Amino acid sequence: MIRKKIAEVLECSDILKEFIVYGWVKSFRNNQFIALNDGSCLQNLQCVLDFEHTSEAIINDINIGAALEIKGVLQESQGRGQRVEIQISELTVLGKADPEEVRKTILSPKKHSLEKLREQAHLRVRTNTFGAVMRLRSKLSFAVHDFFQQKGFNYVHTPIITGSDAEGAGETFKVTNFDLKNIPTTEQGEVDFSQDFFGKETNLTVSGQLEAETFALGLSDVYTFGPTFRAENSNTSRHLAEFWMIEPEMAFCELDGNMDLAEEFIKYVLNYIVKNCPKDLEFLENRLLDEEKNKPKEQRSPMPLREKLNFVIENNFKRVSYTEAIDILKNSKPNKKKKFNYLIEEWGADLQSEHERYLVEKHFKCPVILFDYPASIKAFYMRLNEDGKTVRAMDVLFPGIGEMVGGSQREERYEVLVEKMKALAIDPKELWWYLETRKFGTCKHSGFGLGFERLVLFATGMTNIRDVIPYPRTPQNAEF
Amino acid sequence: MIRKKIAEVLECSDILKEFIVYGWVKSFRNNQFIALNDGSCLQNLQCVLDFEHTSEAIINDINIGAALEIKGVLQESQGRGQRVEIQISELTVLGKADPEEVRKTILSPKKHSLEKLREQAHLRVRTNTFGAVMRLRSKLSFAVHDFFQQKGFNYVHTPIITGSDAEGAGETFKVTNFDLKNIPTTEQGEVDFSQDFFGKETNLTVSGQLEAETFALGLSDVYTFGPTFRAENSNTSRHLAEFWMIEPEMAFCELDGNMDLAEEFIKYVLNYIVKNCPKDLEFLENRLLDEEKNKPKEQRSPMPLREKLNFVIENNFKRVSYTEAIDILKNSKPNKKKKFNYLIEEWGADLQSEHERYLVEKHFKCPVILFDYPASIKAFYMRLNEDGKTVRAMDVLFPGIGEMVGGSQREERYEVLVEKMKALAIDPKELWWYLETRKFGTCKHSGFGLGFERLVLFATGMTNIRDVIPYPRTPQNAEF
Repeated sequence: MIRKKIAEVLECSDILKEFIVYGWVKSFRNNQFIALNDGSCLQNLQCVLDFEHTSEAIINDINIGAALEIKGVLQESQGRGQRVEIQISELTVLGKADPEEVRKTILSPKKHSLEKLREQAHLRVRTNTFGAVMRLRSKLSFAVHDFFQQKGFNYVHTPIITGSDAEGAGETFKVTNFDLKNIPTTEQGEVDFSQDFFGKETNLTVSGQLEAETFALGLSDVYTFGPTFRAENSNTSRHLAEFWMIEPEMAFCELDGNMDLAEEFIKYVLNYIVKNCPKDLEFLENRLLDEEKNKPKEQRSPMPLREKLNFVIENNFKRVSYTEAIDILKNSKPNKKKKFNYLIEEWGADLQSEHERYLVEKHFKCPVILFDYPASIKAFYMRLNEDGKTVRAMDVLFPGIGEMVGGSQREERYEVLVEKMKALAIDPKELWWYLETRKFGTCKHSGFGLGFERLVLFATGMTNIRDVIPYPRTPQNAEF
Repeated sequence: MIRKKIAEVLECSDILKEFIVYGWVKSFRNNQFIALNDGSCLQNLQCVLDFEHTSEAIINDINIGAALEIKGVLQESQGRGQRVEIQISELTVLGKADPEEVRKTILSPKKHSLEKLREQAHLRVRTNTFGAVMRLRSKLSFAVHDFFQQKGFNYVHTPIITGSDAEGAGETFKVTNFDLKNIPTTEQGEVDFSQDFFGKETNLTVSGQLEAETFALGLSDVYTFGPTFRAENSNTSRHLAEFWMIEPEMAFCELDGNMDLAEEFIKYVLNYIVKNCPKDLEFLENRLLDEEKNKPKEQRSPMPLREKLNFVIENNFKRVSYTEAIDILKNSKPNKKKKFNYLIEEWGADLQSEHERYLVEKHFKCPVILFDYPASIKAFYMRLNEDGKTVRAMDVLFPGIGEMVGGSQREERYEVLVEKMKALAIDPKELWWYLETRKFGTCKHSGFGLGFERLVLFATGMTNIRDVIPYPRTPQNAEF
């Protein structure tokens, strides 16, 4: 007898054929109708029990959360809401679930808050919402690889433990093998890192970019997709201490090509889930509508989830220079009425989240790519424009999310790069290997970083980044 | 004018069409023939220069390692070894490469040792060998996702920073945000982890298995593919402090299904590269033949690389119980003649690398799956057999590699699991969430871990694990 997952059974047309299915009880009505779910899809499989010929002991164990093995025959369903069902010929309770104990958990059949789900993160994948989010996350991940591999990009595993934090993208976590109660010091009283595992100070990577660049300058087009870390005390709904980042890097590519790729990439992966995950998206769309129905209209999402995804897929992102953006912001209502916390007074100001949101959500009402930022507010490796004051940087801003992508054309000129490093007190010796790539056949190249969880947030309509990653790491929280 | 990557040009039939190509100079003969490579494939593109109409200044800059932009017309090649070539109409040197400087690097056109390549890891992707290895690594990575997604598995990003090292798979790296020169302590003189970033002691994961299990017990079939860490002072050609691991986990699956999956998986991904990377494999096969030609016959690989891969793809792995394996080893020549460093005297002995190699390379001469190991030498989470002394563990052993896969059916019975934890002094409170999955609809489930770099080693015929990962992390080495 063939085992089938529930997603397969629901698509199956072999009426009267006998199958084995496994899953967990979602509900049990009238001692007869078991809704079984195995996580292979959102939908449950209705399994019909011949309760008159089933022992009471077994019936008593068919409780919500219990794991079952069911042998039975596929038949057309008389009930509403499903095409097929299984007429049970043999049922085995593999793992019980004590109703008293279940009642204390998020497995109990009532609405639980997302906060409560986080506290029981080891069980939340069995809820409809989190199951849908995690299936979408998996499909999005695959779409990432699919996109780049089709385009001939090579996937590069850049190192997680690094000896340099030269990028300066943020605070880093230290990695050590020292006994923290007994840290060796030098005669000068400094920590003696020569005695640590790697013989030097090491930390968790904040970006694979610099290493990815070295690979692009040999393989032409590469991408990373791996975990990155920030030791920043940001307890917001948009920040994690550990998150996954996608970083393509392309040799012989300038900023326009970089922007094209970012836009094409985002559209491709969103289209992939629209095509491949209709049921999970429908469920999440309704979840969000339900969640927002008691909110004032201006706080609700402007479009239902699937409409929003299709809008992004079908429309061009608006490309706006930083200089244009500053003009728009300076003359905007919230700036004139002093509603911004940070008023935009002159060119050179760093844009805050409130400004990005205004541009994207109020002014343009679509994804926006800002480019050519002031050099003074961007990283050392970005290519200086001919004007000497802006760099070839770009950020892709999304409604409800803010910065989805940050990228740039890289400074490929050895001397300019050394000057910029010195100006920022970065020791060129620390990055000798990075600089060397500019000595042997340097070329224009570009790349960007995309925070994967922000993409999942946007794609699922969830609002807290903790709800789109299996086990979130945030300040004061590394549970599970 | 369309830009094409070299891999595309070499497949292109649009004779007389004009293209732009980019790449780095591999060689320049007779002031006329440029071998250009962009890393999109192993092969170079021959670009023919009209040197009589090219300035001397430009010709002088066409040195090995220089980056070029070439516009030209595709034509059939008169020369040997290539179907097509580019007749150059316009050539721009984007980035020079000083021959004096190049001579000091691995870019210089002579044979360099793999050790030397490691010292210049930022440049080694531009060598034929390392370029081929990295393209294969990328393709293998994609094959991993392709295999599991086709089978309906969900990709899970298990956490990298964890608060528990309960698995006991090895020494862990500590992750901290403390100033190492000033570590806060409690009144009792202990490190006060409540003041650290996560409010508790944290380290880098040694395995995502326990978290993956929680996801399998909701989504049925899941897999991880992410970095894992061991702080072990193993300076061997088979160990890294940071490596990538693949860990599938399947609910409602017993050990036989687990072994089936491991075998099917390995065959699938190897077949994927045999089909998709013929040129890189051919190159690496010849590299290995060349490397081994001066070795005594018994130290050479028994088969050329591609024959070896096809042998694994086409033949069944041999499945042998631990008990049978002990019998074979006890009666083996090296045991009787006391050639093993660790003689096999009785049932219960832990198998060393020398024993695994004997079984795989001498006795069975094919990949071997050993199963049903003594409980005493395996981890707490493995399912106890009815005999009370063996567990449902399995290791897949490969010729030349040793352990490629380690897996097991998991102990799904709450009480048995608690007993095993107590026996190993693992505090059940530490793993309360793991234990809870056995309370709410527990079921038989299984999974395994596969060290990705060992797979890449096998697939490429390389012999040092440092040569199959971009930037290896080993004791005393976190350079780049």
